[in-house]
Amino acid sequence: MIRADLVVTGIAELATLRPGPIPRVGRAAQELGLVRDAAVAVDGGRFVYVGSERGLARRVRLRGGGRRRDAGGGVVVPGFVDAHTHVLYAGDRAFELALKARGLSYAAIARRGGGILATVRATRRASPEQLLAETEGRLASMAASGTTTVEVKTGYDLRPQGELRLLRLIPRLARRSGLRLVPTFLGAHAVPPEYVGRSDVYVDRLIRECLPVIARERLAAFVDVFTEPGFFSVHASERLLRAAARLGLGLKVHADEFVRSGGARLAARRGARSADHLLAAHDDDRRALALAGVTAVVLPVTAFGSGTSRRAPARELVDAGIPVAIGTDCSPNAWSTSMPLALALAVHGGRLSPAEALTAATVNAAHAVGVEDAGTVGVGRPADFSVFSLPHVDQLGYRFDAIPAVVYRQGNVISSRALRQ
Amino acid sequence: MIRADLVVTGIAELATLRPGPIPRVGRAAQELGLVRDAAVAVDGGRFVYVGSERGLARRVRLRGGGRRRDAGGGVVVPGFVDAHTHVLYAGDRAFELALKARGLSYAAIARRGGGILATVRATRRASPEQLLAETEGRLASMAASGTTTVEVKTGYDLRPQGELRLLRLIPRLARRSGLRLVPTFLGAHAVPPEYVGRSDVYVDRLIRECLPVIARERLAAFVDVFTEPGFFSVHASERLLRAAARLGLGLKVHADEFVRSGGARLAARRGARSADHLLAAHDDDRRALALAGVTAVVLPVTAFGSGTSRRAPARELVDAGIPVAIGTDCSPNAWSTSMPLALALAVHGGRLSPAEALTAATVNAAHAVGVEDAGTVGVGRPADFSVFSLPHVDQLGYRFDAIPAVVYRQGNVISSRALRQ
Repeated sequence: MIRADLVVTGIAELATLRPGPIPRVGRAAQELGLVRDAAVAVDGGRFVYVGSERGLARRVRLRGGGRRRDAGGGVVVPGFVDAHTHVLYAGDRAFELALKARGLSYAAIARRGGGILATVRATRRASPEQLLAETEGRLASMAASGTTTVEVKTGYDLRPQGELRLLRLIPRLARRSGLRLVPTFLGAHAVPPEYVGRSDVYVDRLIRECLPVIARERLAAFVDVFTEPGFFSVHASERLLRAAARLGLGLKVHADEFVRSGGARLAARRGARSADHLLAAHDDDRRALALAGVTAVVLPVTAFGSGTSRRAPARELVDAGIPVAIGTDCSPNAWSTSMPLALALAVHGGRLSPAEALTAATVNAAHAVGVEDAGTVGVGRPADFSVFSLPHVDQLGYRFDAIPAVVYRQGNVISSRALRQ
Repeated sequence: MIRADLVVTGIAELATLRPGPIPRVGRAAQELGLVRDAAVAVDGGRFVYVGSERGLARRVRLRGGGRRRDAGGGVVVPGFVDAHTHVLYAGDRAFELALKARGLSYAAIARRGGGILATVRATRRASPEQLLAETEGRLASMAASGTTTVEVKTGYDLRPQGELRLLRLIPRLARRSGLRLVPTFLGAHAVPPEYVGRSDVYVDRLIRECLPVIARERLAAFVDVFTEPGFFSVHASERLLRAAARLGLGLKVHADEFVRSGGARLAARRGARSADHLLAAHDDDRRALALAGVTAVVLPVTAFGSGTSRRAPARELVDAGIPVAIGTDCSPNAWSTSMPLALALAVHGGRLSPAEALTAATVNAAHAVGVEDAGTVGVGRPADFSVFSLPHVDQLGYRFDAIPAVVYRQGNVISSRALRQ
């Protein structure tokens, strides 16, 4: 008999998924590894049984004091992996929206104390406790929407020591939130005000003062760079990525978001783990990514923050044979913590099928952030999963508003909700 | 002393709003009727005290067995009024999205059993219990996002007796969901398959067989019509609306959604309570609506259902001096029950300020659906309100993902959620 400290039965449909990355999703039922009338058992935070409810009755015994839960005929999916977030910052930029409504430009809003530098000022000033508390609120909201693993970028201090300070907060955030966090160093998020016109000098400092510390203390899994005119040139970006790769760090690129600036080809050339955004990428760029085995991270909510109507090119990327992942891109510019919303927009605007979107939000996102044991439901893997009161998994991606009933991380409930008490 | 059976204290910011409709929102703090360090008291389902927490301590006494709740320093807003929904139907159209992802046209999807007629077939076949259960799930999801009043349209039976059957279910839905529902007769939602090429005959039947029954039995507050090429002509729509007005029923128009087909001017001419959608309306149309005192209902989530990138023209309508309301337009084509998402899209895409969006989702929506005592927090009004764990009300509209902690309808909790239990 298998011993378990948690058993969940009454699952009408369980999407186990299979290890990724998965560039093309074929027949949904097979690719999603669907099991009907399913059950799972967990012991010590990992799955010890995944299969039919009948099999569980025969093979699994609950330990004394163990928990038996019923999914109420809902669906179970792996905890979502949010592959791209700027969730670690302080301050509030809601006030900008009233200015935008009056037609003020980004520059005019910046002159009134808005824009990214407002967040940089607030983040630099914030105490560790303030940063932890504000970010923890956003992470709790992510957990409430079914996310169990979150990539967390720095990038709102823009001073070498300040960026390292942000990285050092991430393990504390993980403990406080109960979520699995993947730290990414994005010191090259924007050119800091002190280095306008001298971005090369700033990149030199990041290479010299940050990267060795990050590698030595294992502060980040990835180094990311914002490659875009007005931010960092392809040349400067490539110097940073080369230095990071030499130290064994993983690479990511904010690529071709506003204009086709060479970010995708840079990611392909350097063998980055992911290229993110890609709204302005062309066929050639997608072919380069496919050949190099780079994962594409699409961010379907982001365009709303800038008031544009551009849609994430999810269909085009999948059709090019690239494994596609999804992130919320949660930031002060577009405060969105909900992966179900990102999935729905990837389907309705980005033209993925629901099965493709679910794959993108789980196994492919896990691959994009380098946590290969996340994003699937399987024996031996961390018991990170959500119960949704939905008739079948395709309703994720169909509905804009799916909220899980219960979210488990390593077998512990990190969010639950009650209706009509 | 004022006696109360429910007291809610610990409200950092309370948005009371003022009775509408409000065409232009001026300085937010005044227009939203903000009270800081606020408290409310409720007795018998209505507010009996709204004001400062200090005032409450002096003036309100809790009855024996009454409830005292703490908002935890969050904000309180009126329950949202969802001004436009197609929430009453049976069946599931999630499968269409995989076909859309493969590039199939609407016509090809319809040939494979999809499109609006799929919902019509499922709704006609469904037992009352099935219709109630499926719709109730959607209404529960609306309640969970802070909605307390919902306009509910018929329109998925498209047979005179079937449409009346749908109307008769709505009071039962209200009892089961705990929500306040406003029934709208939309027999003229689409030309039924039996009447293709003979829509005038179908409209005649609606006028003859439905409207008198609706008026006599008070089955609906409004009669609505889908005025658009391929649906109902301006001429046919006007006949229906005239007949409805003669019977004392309120009027609504699905106006100028796909093309500029005269729906807005029809709504103005007939003095409709609201004209809805309006994406293709011109300046002239907006002027006509403003002059006639018609409320505009914008539906910012809808375009996603059709895969287009059009944005609700909220800014243009407000600037034209029209009171603007918001709805989810929840339907099988775009399953969205969340008013906070609709607010966020009205702000980020539709360029409303957060204060304008909140006004649109409360008092103006209440006016659009003819329940003038909803949408505000004030003594004597129904105690329909939500507690959000947010630092200030402008975060509604800023965040895409706001979910209330507790939702009250007539002082009863209809939804609550717990994090990290």
